Amino acid sequence: MKRFVDLADFSREQVLELLALARRLESHPEPRALAGKILGLVFFNPSLRTLASFQVAMMRLGGGSFVINPGQGTWQLETRRGVVMNGAAAEHVREGIPVLASYCDALGIRAFAEGKDLQSDLAETAFNSMIGLLDKPVVNLESAVNHPCQALADWKTMDELEVPRDGRFVLSWAYHPRALPLAVPAAAVHMAAMRGMEVVVLRPEGFALPPAIMQRARHAAAASGGSVRETSDRAEALRGAQVLYAKEWGATEHYGDGAADARLRGALTDWCVREDWFAAAPGCHVMHCLPVRRNTAIADEVLDSARSVVQREAYNRLPAQMAVLHQLLRS
Amino acid sequence: MKRFVDLADFSREQVLELLALARRLESHPEPRALAGKILGLVFFNPSLRTLASFQVAMMRLGGGSFVINPGQGTWQLETRRGVVMNGAAAEHVREGIPVLASYCDALGIRAFAEGKDLQSDLAETAFNSMIGLLDKPVVNLESAVNHPCQALADWKTMDELEVPRDGRFVLSWAYHPRALPLAVPAAAVHMAAMRGMEVVVLRPEGFALPPAIMQRARHAAAASGGSVRETSDRAEALRGAQVLYAKEWGATEHYGDGAADARLRGALTDWCVREDWFAAAPGCHVMHCLPVRRNTAIADEVLDSARSVVQREAYNRLPAQMAVLHQLLRS
Amino acid sequence: MKRFVDLADFSREQVLELLALARRLESHPEPRALAGKILGLVFFNPSLRTLASFQVAMMRLGGGSFVINPGQGTWQLETRRGVVMNGAAAEHVREGIPVLASYCDALGIRAFAEGKDLQSDLAETAFNSMIGLLDKPVVNLESAVNHPCQALADWKTMDELEVPRDGRFVLSWAYHPRALPLAVPAAAVHMAAMRGMEVVVLRPEGFALPPAIMQRARHAAAASGGSVRETSDRAEALRGAQVLYAKEWGATEHYGDGAADARLRGALTDWCVREDWFAAAPGCHVMHCLPVRRNTAIADEVLDSARSVVQREAYNRLPAQMAVLHQLLRS
Repeated sequence: MKRFVDLADFSREQVLELLALARRLESHPEPRALAGKILGLVFFNPSLRTLASFQVAMMRLGGGSFVINPGQGTWQLETRRGVVMNGAAAEHVREGIPVLASYCDALGIRAFAEGKDLQSDLAETAFNSMIGLLDKPVVNLESAVNHPCQALADWKTMDELEVPRDGRFVLSWAYHPRALPLAVPAAAVHMAAMRGMEVVVLRPEGFALPPAIMQRARHAAAASGGSVRETSDRAEALRGAQVLYAKEWGATEHYGDGAADARLRGALTDWCVREDWFAAAPGCHVMHCLPVRRNTAIADEVLDSARSVVQREAYNRLPAQMAVLHQLLRS
Repeated sequence: MKRFVDLADFSREQVLELLALARRLESHPEPRALAGKILGLVFFNPSLRTLASFQVAMMRLGGGSFVINPGQGTWQLETRRGVVMNGAAAEHVREGIPVLASYCDALGIRAFAEGKDLQSDLAETAFNSMIGLLDKPVVNLESAVNHPCQALADWKTMDELEVPRDGRFVLSWAYHPRALPLAVPAAAVHMAAMRGMEVVVLRPEGFALPPAIMQRARHAAAASGGSVRETSDRAEALRGAQVLYAKEWGATEHYGDGAADARLRGALTDWCVREDWFAAAPGCHVMHCLPVRRNTAIADEVLDSARSVVQREAYNRLPAQMAVLHQLLRS
Repeated sequence: MKRFVDLADFSREQVLELLALARRLESHPEPRALAGKILGLVFFNPSLRTLASFQVAMMRLGGGSFVINPGQGTWQLETRRGVVMNGAAAEHVREGIPVLASYCDALGIRAFAEGKDLQSDLAETAFNSMIGLLDKPVVNLESAVNHPCQALADWKTMDELEVPRDGRFVLSWAYHPRALPLAVPAAAVHMAAMRGMEVVVLRPEGFALPPAIMQRARHAAAASGGSVRETSDRAEALRGAQVLYAKEWGATEHYGDGAADARLRGALTDWCVREDWFAAAPGCHVMHCLPVRRNTAIADEVLDSARSVVQREAYNRLPAQMAVLHQLLRS
């Protein structure tokens, strides 16, 4: 494996092998597997789980890491091509990123969507412009429309919960005060489709996922025997669901238009996951990638119940990423 | 040992054992004692000594660590229960803290007093709400009214200086432009009382320590043969003192009321420790937990003299904490 | 070696030995050479290469490190002597720096020029006041008028490119929106002179390097058979040059006077290195310490061409610093 930037780069069988490796590393630790190896971690955006779990993953395997937060203790980095750099950014990623890569054995990069131009974000313009500069192993720590580490951890979590391969996976939009990126919803529907599940995207009008994201998920479903559809009918979507995966995202119809998005979402504060959502799905698990705003996206009563598996998902980032790093760096 | 959150959780003999272990680790390093162990460090507030010395303590024992500063490169964390999270905080400690703990073998947390409600701070509401979520070893890196790592380092420092067990320990209020928390004064008087010393709290009117803190110290003194009293008479307090422990704190009579506190402290800028304080205590050591404002809390002439042992206290954080970690993590 | 703060502290032969060690560590890694050793890194100013490469250097040699950014997650540190600290700084370097040094085996410090008083900066007042407190190995991570790690990496880069010992090294002023410090230009001319090169300082009127910096370089040139001169004639300077070392710096005639400096530099935006500069120096390499502003100091066409060796210089920070740390810490 040379890169871990998109689950779609791998076959279903390759993902299953990664998951098997993750389980093996949990039961049979390899504390020297990556001795002498160093991972560079570049965070253009905030992080909690990714920041902690990647450092720990390297330490648990005997390696090391360093962290760079552009603009915080280090220079602000420019990503646009061809600009005259007379503003705030002191350095361009065309220098900064290859230089950091030259110090380490693999580089992880987190770069959220710009949130201005949907087509540019769907094309992963900024992220691809950076990884295109590198000839070393690269890990996607969340890009504009992808988050493969989260997807892998979520898959592992569902396996542990014995969620059937063909179970119903409902990705539900949830309320948030602001428009958030499409990375996790896109990665989650693709992952569930690749796993072979009956994927239902439940969202209010105006928040349909972009066709390109739905198409990618349908493509994965076709190969694995799953299916993907969307609805705004909550009761119908949740009936018999095994998993409700809650996630906040912006109005794709008004991508980059904060005011129009705000008008639309202002009326949707009832999209906060509550216990009464599950009348017809008593054993339904609630998933969320975290961070989650309590009583805004998901109510306390749900997060504090056995229904919530959000902490397990977060924990599974660690073994999932250890498997990824093991594959990337174990020579 | 499962937790190191309060020196009062241990008997005097247990503290002496920790100090003996600290000295042993200085003379006989154990560079592999914590091989493979990982400490998570969460700082809700700034830190210099704690930040550096805990990372070094783990490295000196063969382990590793990671650092999380909520709101700086990572999400701002909410601590209040039951709130609708539609403000600045993206994540609640009820998710964030257990998730971080799931990645490591022990978690250290620094969370200063809120400084609004004295009873809430005395009850360690925020800190206890976090550690109550954890079933792993926990270290208190300074909470609302406690700082056991500092207390342990200070005890070790006095042992090295051969300060008699029954010597006079004067905790003196010192000037600072703003009201600071009660954590260090509370921990220092309790520690000195537990050590068996004659503890005198020297403070201007309005700055008496809360009764609950004095009571805790008196309880410790009763068990160890020490004593605790308070005064505003500097000359009397310092006569024959072995140790002056200077510390800034807020007016407990006006807890949470910055304006009233400022009116009171405005007239107290002469509470800056100077050499002429020690006319009747020529061998008196000056202690301070650091950071200290020069010529505000303690004058240059004192900090630059042999009387000052503040750097030794700071250095002793390292061996003291190595002993704590050794006890918590050495299986 | 006890300190690495100035290349001028070493003979030419000692520098050549360091460079030989750097090459040896690249071809024959010593992953346990600094096992158990810890480097403290204090950054008063932003950093990318230094921040990452020193952490990696320690890891590659089996040691560890910690990072302190005063004012970011830790206290703001005061450097002035004798002040009454009732402002923003919570701690003085006279406590903070020795305390941090007490936790580790060597301390690196980055402290840029204050940019107010040229004589004070030339005397390295702030940096020297800190290292004067330490009796442990110290590394200069860039001070007011020095950057020996960059100089060492640049020397190594020229050796690899087989730039002749007596080749022409042109340090050229380059445009930047603000006045930058003299550290890199001072270190670069001194290093090239010490290497034995024909050093030409090319700069617009008003930007001549201070006499003290030129004198230091001439002194080094005299010992090594090199030479140092200055000019504002670009065509003459570049004719037959082997190296153009571009760097931005402030108007020394108006040191500390931002408005006067701005008036002067406002007319100098054409000091952006372009391909047509090299008509009479076809094989000339372009060097820069980074960070560099694209199309402001150096044009895309140059940075993206084979002429640019800026990434190699940045990579060479790693082996150069590994050699320094090996010499300082390998007992």
